[in-house]
Amino acid sequence: MNASVEQQARYRRSLELFSRARKVIPGGIYGHVAPALVAPGASPYYAERAEGCRYWDVDGNEYIDLMCGYGPIVLGYRHPEVEEAAGRQRRAGDCFNHPGPIMVDLAERLVELVDFAAWAVFGKNGSDMTTWAVQVAREHTGRRKLLMADGAYHGIGSWCTPGHGGVIPEDRAHIHTFVWNDLESFDDQFVRHRENVAAVILTPFHHPLYHDSELPAPGFLRHVEKRCREGGAVLVLDDVRAGFRLHSGGSHRYFDFEPDISCYSKALANGYSLSAALGRGELRSAAGKVFLTGSFWNGAVAMAAAMATLDVLEREDGIGSMQRQGAALVEGLDAAARRHGLRVTCSGPPSMPFMTFSDETNLYRSQRFVVECLSRGLFVHPYHNWFLSAAHRSEDIEAALRIADSAFRSVAEAFTELPEEAREAVASDAAR
Amino acid sequence: MNASVEQQARYRRSLELFSRARKVIPGGIYGHVAPALVAPGASPYYAERAEGCRYWDVDGNEYIDLMCGYGPIVLGYRHPEVEEAAGRQRRAGDCFNHPGPIMVDLAERLVELVDFAAWAVFGKNGSDMTTWAVQVAREHTGRRKLLMADGAYHGIGSWCTPGHGGVIPEDRAHIHTFVWNDLESFDDQFVRHRENVAAVILTPFHHPLYHDSELPAPGFLRHVEKRCREGGAVLVLDDVRAGFRLHSGGSHRYFDFEPDISCYSKALANGYSLSAALGRGELRSAAGKVFLTGSFWNGAVAMAAAMATLDVLEREDGIGSMQRQGAALVEGLDAAARRHGLRVTCSGPPSMPFMTFSDETNLYRSQRFVVECLSRGLFVHPYHNWFLSAAHRSEDIEAALRIADSAFRSVAEAFTELPEEAREAVASDAAR
Repeated sequence: MNASVEQQARYRRSLELFSRARKVIPGGIYGHVAPALVAPGASPYYAERAEGCRYWDVDGNEYIDLMCGYGPIVLGYRHPEVEEAAGRQRRAGDCFNHPGPIMVDLAERLVELVDFAAWAVFGKNGSDMTTWAVQVAREHTGRRKLLMADGAYHGIGSWCTPGHGGVIPEDRAHIHTFVWNDLESFDDQFVRHRENVAAVILTPFHHPLYHDSELPAPGFLRHVEKRCREGGAVLVLDDVRAGFRLHSGGSHRYFDFEPDISCYSKALANGYSLSAALGRGELRSAAGKVFLTGSFWNGAVAMAAAMATLDVLEREDGIGSMQRQGAALVEGLDAAARRHGLRVTCSGPPSMPFMTFSDETNLYRSQRFVVECLSRGLFVHPYHNWFLSAAHRSEDIEAALRIADSAFRSVAEAFTELPEEAREAVASDAAR
Repeated sequence: MNASVEQQARYRRSLELFSRARKVIPGGIYGHVAPALVAPGASPYYAERAEGCRYWDVDGNEYIDLMCGYGPIVLGYRHPEVEEAAGRQRRAGDCFNHPGPIMVDLAERLVELVDFAAWAVFGKNGSDMTTWAVQVAREHTGRRKLLMADGAYHGIGSWCTPGHGGVIPEDRAHIHTFVWNDLESFDDQFVRHRENVAAVILTPFHHPLYHDSELPAPGFLRHVEKRCREGGAVLVLDDVRAGFRLHSGGSHRYFDFEPDISCYSKALANGYSLSAALGRGELRSAAGKVFLTGSFWNGAVAMAAAMATLDVLEREDGIGSMQRQGAALVEGLDAAARRHGLRVTCSGPPSMPFMTFSDETNLYRSQRFVVECLSRGLFVHPYHNWFLSAAHRSEDIEAALRIADSAFRSVAEAFTELPEEAREAVASDAAR
């Protein structure tokens, strides 16, 4: 898809910066790149400022944000209470030779919040914690095998990175995958490696790139948990992405099961770099034996931000609000698509919805939809789940839906090559 | 060594916090733990606030700090210009859906600063970058073997963590070590694995825990570089600890050699969580293929802090100042020890000195020395190199040396059980 002259004008400064970046950064941009690279020239590439559920790109274009920095912004950008708590700690100091008292406060708080947990440790990235957690499982069990769902994302550790570059066979020698929600596939792997399974690592629901998210089928997670208990394997919950968007006590409460270790990060400190792993008492000894450290890991500012984030989330029922606003969004998207003769699938929990065009085998409609939303001031993603925050109010969702409605109209106009039968089916559905 | 009643009173609040921490954090404290755990009860465990080259523990005790947060604090705690730049970015925003323009500015700045570099990428921890760099080397060469110096610290990646917990044999299958500064040992490994060596990874000087630091012997690093060039291996400089304390263009300039990739972190942003890898143009393609991302990696505040840190370091010749003050410290320590009939070895570059008691096979004297320094308001470390910052002025070093003098006197008084010959030797040396 080539950017139009208008699009190039709209994103002029983004494109200038990107052209400088390509000279000094491999690929110009990496990590959270889409939709910039999915819709080259027709998307913002750089952000200037943000507030609440809105941000402004470097060309001054304003967006209602449905990605929340890919998750971290759970209360809205620059939440006053979080900034105030972080600022107070910052004026005292951040990175010392020792932790600050806030580390003890936060560990106590999290251990109280997460029912099964007896202890906590902290890092800076989700990957720090998922990789450490599977090492703790290996130390605890004296085993090597790790089971994970096919297509699951657990970070950039060489054992789990979705990339292939630089990965050697030994990195994956003991990693085995099963199909999410498929008891037979899981049992097959678990039984095959039974005596050697150190850990099963899972996200609370399945959110592979490009595909609809899948909630756990009834009994699936409890089944995995039971197998782990019987087989002496450690059940690691990778709650990095979903944590504190589904349940204030951890996503295992939302889906009613119990892991042995949980990893948190994104939403923990409303944008401050922090991650945490929490675990059962039985794992304390192994946890104490797996080395973990980082130059900034005692950083007190992010921990102060986390305390404030948890306070506000709880006091204002932020998760309930995200779920309600997300549900309204999903309902509105479905209705808007139908009005224009289109069918969309909104999957995942309402606070982390993901919209695809139904029965599509490519991203063309999604890409077009996203570009049309962007040009009208709504930031959504074509192949990654979205995120709500507690800052999204009804009027923001309504504004987002008005933009989505126009974007759907453009998509419907652009894709008129549907075979007659398909168009009829779409029309009949829309009329229901 | 048991803490005295006075020590327990001096560190009362630290000890209370630690006793709470032990319940909710495995081991109570991890990572940057010493001297807390080397001198239990006779050391601060938690920090309250910091300014310049001083900090205050939670009991209100003030310290001249010779550890600088284990390295990050290169300009002094809460440097106004860095805080001002970070604050300006923070008021706009930090963690967005996109990078900020500051990412491009910083990449350009670093590529200009570091002579061999054509590109830069960023992470949050030193470990993020060292692990990514060896993956880039593997991708670039299509080989698996990594050579590193025995006892070198390159982070917590499973391929290099100094811990044993949770590490499986496959993690180390292609890691081979050689003896620092030993050409024969290096050549032996390099020749043995020649066709399979993806990378040699090195710190610019050797700073193993517990042991004296070792500067590179003349020709050693150039020899390694030459072997890498001839053998098609990638030379990775782990400049995480030493970077921007030896030379403003990277530590390879200080020791006159040229790596293919350099990793920076600690001193880069004066305490803000940031790391960077810089590489040669030839490695750009491989670098673009090794996946790297993290939820907070686009964080603009740490990048703004880095720009300001580099500005101040350069404008005020911060590195020159650290080297001069460090040299005065080292000279003063040596003289003070001799005054009390003791012999110390100060090793490493003056801006990152490390003091051991000469010809000791245990840590008893170091531990006693550190405890005595702590009780008098000087924070030093018994088994890890120290760090100077640009905030250390002559009067701070003089104050530190007055404390060290008293601490040496206590050590000399406490260790009177030396055999007669040894005492004579010490005395004769001190009189020179």
